[in-house]
Amino acid sequence: MPDLFTTIAAIQPLDAAAMAAATARQGMLTKPPLALGRLETLSIQLAGITGVPLPRLARKAVAVMAGDHGVTAEGVSAFPSEVTPQMVYNFVAGGAAINVLSRQVGARVVVTDVGVAADLAGCDGVRHRKVRAGTANMATGPAMTRAEALQAFQVGIDLVEELAADGLDILATGEMGIGNTTPSSAIIAALTGLPAARVTGRGTGVSDAGLARKVEVIARALAVNAPDRDDPVDVMAKVGGLEIAALAGAMLAAAARRIPVVMDGFISGAAALTAARLCRGMADYILPSHLSVEVGHQVVFAELGLTPLFDLQMRLGEGTGAVLGIFLADAAARTLCEMATFESAGVASETVNA
Amino acid sequence: MPDLFTTIAAIQPLDAAAMAAATARQGMLTKPPLALGRLETLSIQLAGITGVPLPRLARKAVAVMAGDHGVTAEGVSAFPSEVTPQMVYNFVAGGAAINVLSRQVGARVVVTDVGVAADLAGCDGVRHRKVRAGTANMATGPAMTRAEALQAFQVGIDLVEELAADGLDILATGEMGIGNTTPSSAIIAALTGLPAARVTGRGTGVSDAGLARKVEVIARALAVNAPDRDDPVDVMAKVGGLEIAALAGAMLAAAARRIPVVMDGFISGAAALTAARLCRGMADYILPSHLSVEVGHQVVFAELGLTPLFDLQMRLGEGTGAVLGIFLADAAARTLCEMATFESAGVASETVNA
Repeated sequence: MPDLFTTIAAIQPLDAAAMAAATARQGMLTKPPLALGRLETLSIQLAGITGVPLPRLARKAVAVMAGDHGVTAEGVSAFPSEVTPQMVYNFVAGGAAINVLSRQVGARVVVTDVGVAADLAGCDGVRHRKVRAGTANMATGPAMTRAEALQAFQVGIDLVEELAADGLDILATGEMGIGNTTPSSAIIAALTGLPAARVTGRGTGVSDAGLARKVEVIARALAVNAPDRDDPVDVMAKVGGLEIAALAGAMLAAAARRIPVVMDGFISGAAALTAARLCRGMADYILPSHLSVEVGHQVVFAELGLTPLFDLQMRLGEGTGAVLGIFLADAAARTLCEMATFESAGVASETVNA
Repeated sequence: MPDLFTTIAAIQPLDAAAMAAATARQGMLTKPPLALGRLETLSIQLAGITGVPLPRLARKAVAVMAGDHGVTAEGVSAFPSEVTPQMVYNFVAGGAAINVLSRQVGARVVVTDVGVAADLAGCDGVRHRKVRAGTANMATGPAMTRAEALQAFQVGIDLVEELAADGLDILATGEMGIGNTTPSSAIIAALTGLPAARVTGRGTGVSDAGLARKVEVIARALAVNAPDRDDPVDVMAKVGGLEIAALAGAMLAAAARRIPVVMDGFISGAAALTAARLCRGMADYILPSHLSVEVGHQVVFAELGLTPLFDLQMRLGEGTGAVLGIFLADAAARTLCEMATFESAGVASETVNA
């Protein structure tokens, strides 16, 4: 398996020839120029990512990475950590929102235990890749060691390698980890230099007092650990999360294999920003999906130079926004590939009054 | 078949009991409260429309109404009228964007010739309901007679009755008619009293000079015909379109049968505003989809009290935005119906730090 460094080194620029071919074809399809809006630009990006002028997205998957967070001891989440393993069982049973939406779009749900703080050995249907049983409390010291962080990145890389071996055309990112908006805010604050308050929201729904406590905890974690802004692995180790590192690794591995990766909400955003800081070209391989209610998500979009495709006021995670994004990416690829051209359909393309 | 007046009289308020049941269920599903955002509110609206606490959207269709416009003689469109019948053949052959996207979401495409200015009698696969071969030039007199307008509304009512007889769970609206942004702007200006320039855009892509001419033509049509703002049928007859009237009729008939109807872009918006002025309760039955690039679409949303679900900078029509909306409505219904509850999945629902 490639490691993090060989994965990063393998990421190439988008395929300009495939993009030019897709752009030319969009101009021949039976519609006014640009009338499909962002579906057209998405289709051209898909051509550039895959290197195929007429990309097809038949084999879809969502990677749901699960991990727990020692920082929940500080009272930063509205739900107890026990919910993380409970939701893993829910994923495996097919009862969570991500299962329902993935069935709708025809995506496979792949659940990985990267760092749940409960014993899931008896849970069939989960990829067992636990690096450690939850992070340490980052408010009092590093969340994990650098070696553990690298191991967690590797979990994501390995997943993409395995999925790619079976055939994979598009990957969505998702996660489950009670408390994980807190390290996500910390990662984004560390990588951007923005104050914690600017990138911290209510997560699954803490009160005003809970939000104030959360901001204080993040500021404390940043002060205690002093992560090196120019070393994203250091940031991930000190104030990150196991599932977040795995998502960043999966994103980089997808890019290295020219597989488009759809970014979900805020936690996936923290992973994407980490991946983009490890490899400048990464953002070209990311397809946006929704804008999360979580305030720091806007910072991620701005930093990546991306614009959300939609805003449904979602804040669930799991990959739920990203699988809706898979649908739109598929719509983009299908219109590019399946629409008739002016010539093939016998439709007049010349404009009058132009 | 019910006529326009019996259709309007049959429209009932949303089912409050079904909405209350859906709302209660949303609170029991394995996710934080409101975390699915607008998918949750959509699911509750669907319950209210259908009267079913757990609505299912298995049988989907998009009504593509086709008609031509005498006002194209004034040079208001970037494409010639010949494109309308050419695109009808493209729809029947399955090569248009609406065909591709409808295949993706599993929706049936039903194409109706309400008023194409070419002989389509030999075109199999089209519902032949031509009221007249295109409207007259509204810049010099009424687009059609009141009797013709009523006949065109009836085409839409009849379509929904036919589809409902086969079973229909959700309807999307679409259209094809070169020049039809011009009567759509005229309808919206007439029904709101706003100046033509405020509700007129570039359609399929006219130049600055073309846009100025279009605004002038619409202002002239309104002055020449003096449509009665309080009589939407008069507005439709004088400055409307055959396919637009049919869409308005279809929307009203869907509401009367408690079938949710997804509004497409600007032309569908003009039809929706007409339908809402004929029956105040109509807007409750409309599911929004995208915000069109066409500027007057924002006016329609404001008048209907609706908010777009997404904005992909689309401006194609045909129902392309609405079938993407069908996907989101289906996602809303599926999550409501298929997700596990906290109790069934054994997930802790009590919050901490609330």
